[in-house]
Amino acid sequence: MSNTAGQIIKCRAAVAWEAGKPLVIEEVEVAPPQTGEVRLKILFTSLCHTDVYFWEAKGQTPLFPRIFGHEAGGIVESVGEGVTHLKPGDHALPVFTGECGDCPHCKSEESNMCDLLRINTDRGVMLNDNKSRFSIKGQPVHHFVGTSTFSEYTVVHAGCVAKINPEAPLDKVCILSCGICTGLGATINVAKPKPGSSVAIFGLGAVGLAAAEGARISGASRIIGVDLVSSRFELAKKFGVNEFVNPKDHDKPVQQVIAEMTNGGVDRAVECTGSIQAMTSAFECVHDGWGVAVLVGVPNKDDAFKTHPMNFLNERTLKGTFYGNYKPRTDLPNVVEKYMKGELELEKFITHRIPFSEINKAFDYMLKGESIRCIIKMDE
Amino acid sequence: MSNTAGQIIKCRAAVAWEAGKPLVIEEVEVAPPQTGEVRLKILFTSLCHTDVYFWEAKGQTPLFPRIFGHEAGGIVESVGEGVTHLKPGDHALPVFTGECGDCPHCKSEESNMCDLLRINTDRGVMLNDNKSRFSIKGQPVHHFVGTSTFSEYTVVHAGCVAKINPEAPLDKVCILSCGICTGLGATINVAKPKPGSSVAIFGLGAVGLAAAEGARISGASRIIGVDLVSSRFELAKKFGVNEFVNPKDHDKPVQQVIAEMTNGGVDRAVECTGSIQAMTSAFECVHDGWGVAVLVGVPNKDDAFKTHPMNFLNERTLKGTFYGNYKPRTDLPNVVEKYMKGELELEKFITHRIPFSEINKAFDYMLKGESIRCIIKMDE
Ligand SMILES: NC(=O)c1ccc[n+]([C@@H]2O[C@H](COP(=O)([O-])OP(=O)(O)OC[C@H]3O[C@@H](n4cnc5c(N)ncnc54)[C@H](O)[C@@H]3O)[C@@H](O)[C@H]2O)c1
Ligand SMILES: NC(=O)c1ccc[n+]([C@@H]2O[C@H](COP(=O)([O-])OP(=O)(O)OC[C@H]3O[C@@H](n4cnc5c(N)ncnc54)[C@H](O)[C@@H]3O)[C@@H](O)[C@H]2O)c1
Ligand SMILES: [Zn+2]
Ligand SMILES: [Zn+2]
Ligand SMILES: [Zn+2]
Ligand SMILES: [Zn+2]
Repeated sequence: MSNTAGQIIKCRAAVAWEAGKPLVIEEVEVAPPQTGEVRLKILFTSLCHTDVYFWEAKGQTPLFPRIFGHEAGGIVESVGEGVTHLKPGDHALPVFTGECGDCPHCKSEESNMCDLLRINTDRGVMLNDNKSRFSIKGQPVHHFVGTSTFSEYTVVHAGCVAKINPEAPLDKVCILSCGICTGLGATINVAKPKPGSSVAIFGLGAVGLAAAEGARISGASRIIGVDLVSSRFELAKKFGVNEFVNPKDHDKPVQQVIAEMTNGGVDRAVECTGSIQAMTSAFECVHDGWGVAVLVGVPNKDDAFKTHPMNFLNERTLKGTFYGNYKPRTDLPNVVEKYMKGELELEKFITHRIPFSEINKAFDYMLKGESIRCIIKMDE
Repeated sequence: MSNTAGQIIKCRAAVAWEAGKPLVIEEVEVAPPQTGEVRLKILFTSLCHTDVYFWEAKGQTPLFPRIFGHEAGGIVESVGEGVTHLKPGDHALPVFTGECGDCPHCKSEESNMCDLLRINTDRGVMLNDNKSRFSIKGQPVHHFVGTSTFSEYTVVHAGCVAKINPEAPLDKVCILSCGICTGLGATINVAKPKPGSSVAIFGLGAVGLAAAEGARISGASRIIGVDLVSSRFELAKKFGVNEFVNPKDHDKPVQQVIAEMTNGGVDRAVECTGSIQAMTSAFECVHDGWGVAVLVGVPNKDDAFKTHPMNFLNERTLKGTFYGNYKPRTDLPNVVEKYMKGELELEKFITHRIPFSEINKAFDYMLKGESIRCIIKMDE
């Protein structure tokens, strides 16, 4: 038992006071976990685009002050009442979506969209009592997607915490908490390419590169990267991408370019851009008879997906996924094992490492498009 | 060996001389089958909507004179060179789509959209020599979808002929050549509902009723019929449909009505209307996390399928199918066996029986919406 259990912990957190303004390292008070909650000591965290979107709060509900962060690895400090699958000392990954274990989604073999713990970006409090566990001088600070990992300690619903192999290096597997699993699972769990098949990946950001890694692991032989930024191709080669198409280089729609390259279309396409044009192209570039396209990118509120229904009748399939269809508690430990066995490569996603005190640099790297993942070491 | 092999056969055929005008029973000459072709003696045929659409030729390429008909059962009279899987005397079902056995689709486990023998409604001749095998006083008469079963004898590409159990009653299994397999396979092969699940069927015509029969066979417990004509429900009960929704009875979109009836959506939906509104509703009424919708209805040329992409991201799947994903030569014999074992009920689809001499009555029944399937006995 840790000697901090049941007590308020004072520690450092990077607080976003205002939209788009640099985070400020502050001393915060972190309340003990309540029933069904866990308090984690975060050792490593990384920055994902979603943090940046909500920090910029352009088109998103602004909620400040707030502690961002949702990709991280840590150790259980203490657990609240009724938590049985975790104990102090366990190595764990917090996840922005959870697994209550009881709802129809958790009981379904297919879905990971838990009714209780599904992502909610507008909620800045814990489910238990609709209050925050963070405060600065008595003033509450909002949570972000139930994780708020830009803090040395954080409180998370136990259903959102995956217990993992304690041998796994947290400074690497921490990136599995979000973007990497999303892309990886979109290919492995949803698109399911067969060995020797062709896969088009739209968007070569972190999520798309992880989708490419999924295609490489699945044994796809042609992995066609599609991005509006040609420089992304050089980087993407490390992830198995062996052909590249920039839609800007062609007069005809990119789906037609791809169909011509592949004798009628690719076997699978995974869209990781958030652009509605790319969603349509990804669907229309798969082969009739057996092609499957998977949408991953988050669209704008008033986007509409539009295609001729004959594209479906000709035996194409369109699916979408949330967090790569992984159930966090059930599946994440196995993804970590895949890394431990050398089947999944994580190092190549990590382009930068910085101390927590310099966390704003991670935002700069991402905004300039220089980083894939920047690891932030909490005790520095 | 039949004594007609290699010779021209004179027989009766129902010829469509003009769009929308009653068929005329004429004496036609049927040439012998060429390489890779088969000549069939048709014993029973039935009328499908697709015959009616092309006979009316509203919005379809008119091609007259023509011999329609594509649902039938018969006996092989003679075979052309190179035909090995059929011999005179075999009981067989001709199909409007074929299986060459060699193309990527035929080699794929998933697709039935054979590159060579895929349906072509605009072609009125045989593939071999781009000529017709039918003539009246030296004047060629066009084929229809490679089958032209409204003739006592017809010539068909061997890849479009399924050899079936000779014990099977041709006056019943003949309806498996088109609409029934399309609906049945859309559910069994594509939507794949699990036992105990809920299935919505949009459109309760022959195809939709066959989709319902597929849901019944799959063990679905809630089969919700959706049609603009409420009288269809009474009939549909025989096909396992146990709930009914008429979109006209509600102020809100039918997908919302269904979601409310089913605690968030049905497990599967099969659209068998051809209406673009129904296609969207069928997709949007499936449950997030695991719902699968299947499009079967043939849309208009300028229809666009439109939905918010979040409906996909919330883990819904949309597919389409052609002929219920059955490969005619490989799969049809097994569907016939399903009927022989009593697992599949065909009798309830057959509402009328008429002699060939009265074939125009079948058109009347269909146009008035009175029939599901009308069996036409060729030798009467
Ligand atoms: N479904 C989920 O569970 C989930 C989880 C995390 C992220 N996401 C979403 O996945 C998407 C990708 O995330 P990311 O962090 O990799 O983003 P990113 O911005 O780093 O990468 C996106 C890439 O797409 C490219 N792109 C944009 N429009 C394009 C187009 N029309 N055609 C081709 N390429 C195009 C960009 O140049 C960029 O390289 C985002 O929309 C994000 O919101 C979804
Ligand atoms: N994909 C394939 O391989 C294939 C094969 C054969 C037929 N089809 C198509 O399947 C469809 C059904 O064929 P059918 O012979 O059963 O037709 P049908 O006309 O007998 O039945 C269609 C039914 O749909 C109902 N309907 C129409 N619009 C509707 C709406 N918006 N909401 C609810 N119900 C609606 C009608 O009232 C009717 O009962 C047609 O579009 C046909 O072209 C497809
Ligand atoms: Zn749950
Ligand atoms: Zn993220
Ligand atoms: Zn073929
Ligand atoms: Zn038909």
